[in-house]
Amino acid sequence: MIVGIIGGGQLARMLALAGRPLGIECIFIDPGVDVSAAGTGRHWRGEYDDQALLRRMVASADVATYEFENVPPVTIEYLAQHMTVFPGALALSCARDRLHEKSLFDRLGIPTVAYRAVGSRADLTEAVAALGLPAVLKTRRFGYDGKGQMVLRDKADLDAAWEKLSGPDLILESFVDFGRELSVIAVRGRTGDTRFYPLSENVHDRGVLASSRGRPGDPRTAQAYAYMEVLLRELDYVGVLALELFEVGDRLLANEMAPRVHNSGHWTIEGSETSQFENHLRAIVGWPLGETVSVGHTVMFNCVGHLPDPAAVLKVPGAHWHDYRKAVRPGRKVAHITARAADASGLEAATAALKAFLPGHILG
Amino acid sequence: MIVGIIGGGQLARMLALAGRPLGIECIFIDPGVDVSAAGTGRHWRGEYDDQALLRRMVASADVATYEFENVPPVTIEYLAQHMTVFPGALALSCARDRLHEKSLFDRLGIPTVAYRAVGSRADLTEAVAALGLPAVLKTRRFGYDGKGQMVLRDKADLDAAWEKLSGPDLILESFVDFGRELSVIAVRGRTGDTRFYPLSENVHDRGVLASSRGRPGDPRTAQAYAYMEVLLRELDYVGVLALELFEVGDRLLANEMAPRVHNSGHWTIEGSETSQFENHLRAIVGWPLGETVSVGHTVMFNCVGHLPDPAAVLKVPGAHWHDYRKAVRPGRKVAHITARAADASGLEAATAALKAFLPGHILG
Repeated sequence: MIVGIIGGGQLARMLALAGRPLGIECIFIDPGVDVSAAGTGRHWRGEYDDQALLRRMVASADVATYEFENVPPVTIEYLAQHMTVFPGALALSCARDRLHEKSLFDRLGIPTVAYRAVGSRADLTEAVAALGLPAVLKTRRFGYDGKGQMVLRDKADLDAAWEKLSGPDLILESFVDFGRELSVIAVRGRTGDTRFYPLSENVHDRGVLASSRGRPGDPRTAQAYAYMEVLLRELDYVGVLALELFEVGDRLLANEMAPRVHNSGHWTIEGSETSQFENHLRAIVGWPLGETVSVGHTVMFNCVGHLPDPAAVLKVPGAHWHDYRKAVRPGRKVAHITARAADASGLEAATAALKAFLPGHILG
Repeated sequence: MIVGIIGGGQLARMLALAGRPLGIECIFIDPGVDVSAAGTGRHWRGEYDDQALLRRMVASADVATYEFENVPPVTIEYLAQHMTVFPGALALSCARDRLHEKSLFDRLGIPTVAYRAVGSRADLTEAVAALGLPAVLKTRRFGYDGKGQMVLRDKADLDAAWEKLSGPDLILESFVDFGRELSVIAVRGRTGDTRFYPLSENVHDRGVLASSRGRPGDPRTAQAYAYMEVLLRELDYVGVLALELFEVGDRLLANEMAPRVHNSGHWTIEGSETSQFENHLRAIVGWPLGETVSVGHTVMFNCVGHLPDPAAVLKVPGAHWHDYRKAVRPGRKVAHITARAADASGLEAATAALKAFLPGHILG
C-alpha cells in the first residue's frame, strides 16, 4: 500500500514511520532539499503543484493526503480528479481560510469567538467598533504558529497592524481571555466509524505550541466531542481532524481546526493504544480504526529552536525522544520529547526532570 | 548517529525503525536484493565479508552491530580492528557454537542440558551410551528455527541422523521433557548499567517460535535474571542479550543464547516502556538505557509462511500489525502481530479473536 503525501516535514515523517510496520510506504512531494521525512519514504523534490510529480503520484500511490492545509488548491483539484484524496476538498477549503472556518462553526452551532471579515481599512475601523478592543487582526490564510496575526490593544495600534498585514483577506477576532487551551483530535474512517482521543491540554509560548498533555476524563470532554462529531459528519470527513478550543469558564469556544495530524496529538505515539499517525493512515486507506484508549499518563514538549542532547534527555525515566532531523533555527520545531508514566506523580517527576532541557519553556 | 548492521532482515528493520525517532540512522550490509530492512535505512548490497563494503562501513558508521550470530568471523575481526562493534567478539564466538555456549554455561554454574561433543560416528555411539535416549543431535553451528537438528528416539535412528547431519562439528544433547519454554532478555550499557525485561513465555511449533507472552512477575524471574546477570558480566556484554530456558519442575535449564535482539522480545515494542530494539541501539551508541517496565499485557504471534490480511487483523481491538515486507514462503517469518490489553481478560479476548488469522498456530 502506497500513500502519497503533499509535504515532507515532521508530520509526514511521523506518518511514514507509523506506516512502515503496517506495510504502508509513503511518497513525499516537497521542494526542500533534505526534508525531515527524507529517509522514512521516497522524497520527490519539487513544488507542491509540480504537474509531472503529481502525475507520478497518481500513477504510484493508492491514496493521497497532505500534512499542511495550505496545499495549492490546484494540487488537490488535480489529485482528486485522478485518485482518492483524504481529507476531502470541503474540509481543506474551510480549514485554510479563517473566515470560512468561523462561518462553518457558526452554521453548525459550534460557539466560536466573535469575528468580522476585514477587506479594507474602513472595514477594520468598523470591525473594531463592533467587537471592541483588545482584538486580534489575522490574515485569513497562511497563518500558523502565531504568524500572520497582531493583537490590537488600542486604537493607535490599528494603522500599524493594517500596514503590516494589509490585504483584502483579513479577519478581526475578539480577544478571548481564556482559562485553558484545549484541543480535541478524532479520526473518522471511510465507513463513518469515528474514534476520539482524550482531550489535549495545550500551552503556547509566543504563538508556538510548547506542551500538550493528554487529559482523559477532562470535564470538557463531552462538549468537545459533540462539536467534533458535528464537524466530522458535516464534512463527511475521512482521516484525523484536530479542533483547537478555548476554555472560558465552563464553556468552549472553537478557535481553529486542522484537517490533518496535529502537533497537540504527538503524545498519542506513546500515550494511546493507536497513535494519531497510524489512525490517519488506517482511515485513509480504508482499514479499521485502532483504539484510542490512553496508555499511561503522557505529556509532550516541543523543542523549538534548540536541540537538547538526546543522551541527557534519555536519562529521564519515561522520556521518549523524537528527532525530526531538521537544522536548528530560531522558532523552528526540531524535535519533541514525550514523557510517559504509569501514574500522575510519575509524570510530575519526569516533567520536573525535563525542565532542564527546555530553556525558557512554559511548562503546563 | 549512524549504526552499521550486518544483515538486513526483519531484526535490522525493527532496529532501524526504532532508531529513526532517536536520530539514529542505520546502514545494512546484506547480499539480498530487496531485503526486509530496505527503505528503513541504507541497504548496501553485498556479501557479509565484502571488504569494500566493510571499509565503507568503517568510514560511515559510528558503531557496528549485527542481527544474526553467524556473521563471518573475518567480518567481525575486521570491523573490531577499525571501529566499535557491540556485542563483542567473545559473546559472538560463544553464541555461534553450541559446544562453546554449553561450556560457558557450565563454567558459570548455569544449569544446562547434559551434552557431549560429537566429532565422529564412534563419538555418537559413545554419547548416546552416556546420555541415553531420547536425545537431540545438532550441528554446533548455523542451526536456527529447528534446522540442523534431529531427535534420536531409538538406536535405529543413529545412522540416518549421522548421515543427514554428519560432520566434525556436532553435539548430542539430552532430550528435555520441559514444562514451559521461557526466555529472558536483558540489555547492558557501555557503563555496565543493566536492565532486564519481564520473562517471555514462548511456544514453538515445529522448531519455529509461534508465540511469546510477556510474563511480569513470573515465579522463575529471579532465577533467570541471576543466570543472565552472570553471563552479561562474564562477557562484558554491551547490547541486548537473549537467553532461552527450559522450565523443568521449578528449575531452569539454559538452552541457548542470542547476542542480539530476539524474536521472543518483539512484544516489547508495545509492551514495554522501551523496546528491545531501542534499548539495543541506546546501549551500543553509549546512551542511557530506557526503562523496561511493562506497559499493559501483551502477547506476540509470528506469522510463519502466510500473511494475513492486515485489514482483518486490525479489526481486533489492541492488535498491532508488523509487516516485514518479505515474500511469503513456507516456514518463513513474514510478519508478527502483537496484542496489547490493559488487563489479562482483555488479552484473552484479543488472543481468541486473533486465532482466525493464525492457521495451525499453537496458541500458548
